[in-house]
Amino acid sequence: MAKVLVFGHKNPDTDTICSALAYAHLKRELGLNAEAARLGEPNLETQYALDYFDVEAPQLIEKVGDDVESVILVDHNEFPQSVDNIKDVRISEVIDHHRISSFETKEPLMFRAEPVGCTATIIYKLYNENNVKIPKNIAGLLLSAIISDSLLFQSPTCTKIDVDTAKALAEIAGVEAEKYGMDMLKAGADLSTKTVPELLTMDAKPFVMNGVNVQIAQVNTVDIDEVYVRQAEIEDEMTKTIAEKNLGLFLFVVTDIINSNSDALALGKDVDKVEKAFGVTLENNRAFLKGVVSRKKQIVTNLTDAFQA
Amino acid sequence: MAKVLVFGHKNPDTDTICSALAYAHLKRELGLNAEAARLGEPNLETQYALDYFDVEAPQLIEKVGDDVESVILVDHNEFPQSVDNIKDVRISEVIDHHRISSFETKEPLMFRAEPVGCTATIIYKLYNENNVKIPKNIAGLLLSAIISDSLLFQSPTCTKIDVDTAKALAEIAGVEAEKYGMDMLKAGADLSTKTVPELLTMDAKPFVMNGVNVQIAQVNTVDIDEVYVRQAEIEDEMTKTIAEKNLGLFLFVVTDIINSNSDALALGKDVDKVEKAFGVTLENNRAFLKGVVSRKKQIVTNLTDAFQA
Repeated sequence: MAKVLVFGHKNPDTDTICSALAYAHLKRELGLNAEAARLGEPNLETQYALDYFDVEAPQLIEKVGDDVESVILVDHNEFPQSVDNIKDVRISEVIDHHRISSFETKEPLMFRAEPVGCTATIIYKLYNENNVKIPKNIAGLLLSAIISDSLLFQSPTCTKIDVDTAKALAEIAGVEAEKYGMDMLKAGADLSTKTVPELLTMDAKPFVMNGVNVQIAQVNTVDIDEVYVRQAEIEDEMTKTIAEKNLGLFLFVVTDIINSNSDALALGKDVDKVEKAFGVTLENNRAFLKGVVSRKKQIVTNLTDAFQA
Repeated sequence: MAKVLVFGHKNPDTDTICSALAYAHLKRELGLNAEAARLGEPNLETQYALDYFDVEAPQLIEKVGDDVESVILVDHNEFPQSVDNIKDVRISEVIDHHRISSFETKEPLMFRAEPVGCTATIIYKLYNENNVKIPKNIAGLLLSAIISDSLLFQSPTCTKIDVDTAKALAEIAGVEAEKYGMDMLKAGADLSTKTVPELLTMDAKPFVMNGVNVQIAQVNTVDIDEVYVRQAEIEDEMTKTIAEKNLGLFLFVVTDIINSNSDALALGKDVDKVEKAFGVTLENNRAFLKGVVSRKKQIVTNLTDAFQA
């Protein structure tokens, strides 16, 4: 049977990996020859979830091979965030919770986007709509995804539907969401072993805002100061990336998952857009962003506005 | 309560008008202040359906007003086919069955596209998912949309889901689908009272293919020859439009709804793409397209390929 690949975005996070694994499982239950894939290494947080629920990481792919009949995108739709040869493959489905941009198809497809906090929340719904039972370990992965994207239900992207879904999934998975969730987030927030290039790429996404290339990298931590001990080295690396990728702006967002604030470092010719977007003044290239934890809902939207104004 | 407008594409067809009316009704049942709208005059076929089920056409709008909080697009997503100020308004939902292209949002939204033959089929599903009863006249409108888009179940875009949905809707509406459907299609295929400019715009859609502006107009008839009695006049009008809209290709497709074939007239510097797309040779600017009835599935896809090759 023709193979269908299910994968999330580059620089995979927990939602991207876990939603790909779960949706591939659901599709197999519905009779498709579906396999999950990933476009990069699982981060520490994701690895914690995979280990906890005893699930292997999906296969790593660099491009979609000729033996693949179609692909299903989860947790993203913007082509620059997808596999390199995305324009050459048939996209049969998208399951996502992000804005839609830089996306197009030649033919009609199934596109299911909802403004909820996590792709896994939509996938839980699709299991139910198709009357397929969710196995214990898949429920654990979907729960991990919701905890990750919502920072344990603290992010403004988190909706009541996400919270209710997480509750139902925790029951199936047989874990206590708050305790398991904090352990998982802390596992992911250990940045001490990361090199500076790793910090800047482990959760980085490219955007095009009013024609300008913008890179937004985000890391979670329990101690912002610990990250900025290496600020000089981080700035050197960012400056290199700006030249290589012709960026107008590189924004590095360090998010304190305990207190739900961020401290962002901005470099590039368009740093004024950051000041305008958040009503702050950069000092030492940095600005404290009170209450900001969500790249999608609090950073991308405000920056897009600032670039268009 | 903030107003939400629900509308389909310009040059409205039966699916666009009926899906807008039905989805606005469903949204009101779910507590929203939703109103249906239209971006142009209902065609004869749509008017037949509205009269038969005793429903008023939705309000005509030229642009979205300041009192509108968000809009819901049905039966389209490509901005060139939508309201003129679409880029300035918040899109909260899209319900569609077309390819996705020239569409983007700043924020996450509910986007529900499925590769079925008609938007009305998806809206029937949404009534059921939300446990809302479909009134008799709304069922009649949704049925009319499916019959229209599928040319009474003959189009290759028509899926088993569309047929099953139409069956269920016919029962609620209390009509015999085949008989009602043929009467409705014939009412729409009466082109004798149409002026040439009307023929060329009544169901015309703009596309951008590999950077080239392409206009594809389609009319249904029971007698192809009758339409081409006016070929010279039609060509004059097309030539004018090509200059005005800077088109690389204007394709006028005359579809015989009884025998499910089309006879297309092509003008513009890129007419060779039509020959390449369908393996035909234009004679007297025309080509017979055997078995071709669907703009979406048989024309747009093949033409897009031809422009990219």
